[in-house]
Amino acid sequence: MLSESFDDLVSNLKKFPGIGEKTATRLALHLLKLPKDEARKIGESMITAVNSFDHCPICNILTDEKPCTFCKDEMRSESLLCVVESTQDVFLVENTHEYKGKYFVLGNLLSPMDGIGPAEIHFPLLIHYLNDHKVEELILALSPSVEGETTINFIVEQLKDKVNNITRLSTGLPFGGDMEYATSKTLATALQRRYSVED
Amino acid sequence: MLSESFDDLVSNLKKFPGIGEKTATRLALHLLKLPKDEARKIGESMITAVNSFDHCPICNILTDEKPCTFCKDEMRSESLLCVVESTQDVFLVENTHEYKGKYFVLGNLLSPMDGIGPAEIHFPLLIHYLNDHKVEELILALSPSVEGETTINFIVEQLKDKVNNITRLSTGLPFGGDMEYATSKTLATALQRRYSVED
Repeated sequence: MLSESFDDLVSNLKKFPGIGEKTATRLALHLLKLPKDEARKIGESMITAVNSFDHCPICNILTDEKPCTFCKDEMRSESLLCVVESTQDVFLVENTHEYKGKYFVLGNLLSPMDGIGPAEIHFPLLIHYLNDHKVEELILALSPSVEGETTINFIVEQLKDKVNNITRLSTGLPFGGDMEYATSKTLATALQRRYSVED
Repeated sequence: MLSESFDDLVSNLKKFPGIGEKTATRLALHLLKLPKDEARKIGESMITAVNSFDHCPICNILTDEKPCTFCKDEMRSESLLCVVESTQDVFLVENTHEYKGKYFVLGNLLSPMDGIGPAEIHFPLLIHYLNDHKVEELILALSPSVEGETTINFIVEQLKDKVNNITRLSTGLPFGGDMEYATSKTLATALQRRYSVED
């Protein structure tokens, strides 16, 4: 519309989820209206974060330290491992203040139809983690969606002989919903009422 | 949450309108999940656009050329000048394919309560434009909001002896609404039915 660099900016902004042509154009124009120093800082903060972040080689969380702060934290119980889909879910669990163990981030949920198999959920790294750490309880903190249930079933099937106690979040969460929209209170209850998959 | 560079990114993303803490965090995490090259490009496209864009010294539109493509375009009628609030509004008018004249971007609407006076709407530059160009019709394509009406009244009062024909968009637009949400069709009708402010 305005020029090549503007169109380039708009099409780059559209790479974010939920941002279409109209919103991207509005954001781009807002950016150009900001004081130049402030506007440049937004772009620079992106590049800085992208350059400094990577996946923790132990638990797969997004981090700018190796290993991440969670893996390094000696105050956290090594015997508890909370398996989540994404780095964002780690924060959701942290916000409940109900959990003091370690984390493992799958990165995806199993979805064979979309070509997302055991390698894409970093299952080999999880096995590696369990070989290296003495985990007494594996908490599967995954959304109770079709993909979440598939992933829970797969992990239980593969690990039931390896880990004594595999638990999942209480389904106080609405079935078929998305974990991200649960309130902290609901999530806290779900953590408190987690139950063994063999019940 | 994750680190200083992450918090910095989130607080920078919150500078966009309509983006709060939760959305900014989601966008930041999405960015870090993208392939690094692609993610860096988003930040780079911002910096490139910010560095290359500025206001046209003639019509005040955001542009990376001096003067802008509209001011340079000899196919556009010099005798028609469409006054809009923002660069985005230029695209809204362009999308109607009803207009082949020049543009002038005020940058703001008058709002004395917020300290936005004639200087902030670049009124001196508009005067300068009218002295330099032979404008037969000044089309005030402004939202029919309180600020829009105030701005229209001010411009008419100041320029009625200077410009023969000052028109405004037909108020087929809903009063008190925002021009941005009008469909292209509504805006086209409003352009076709513009009327003289002295009627």
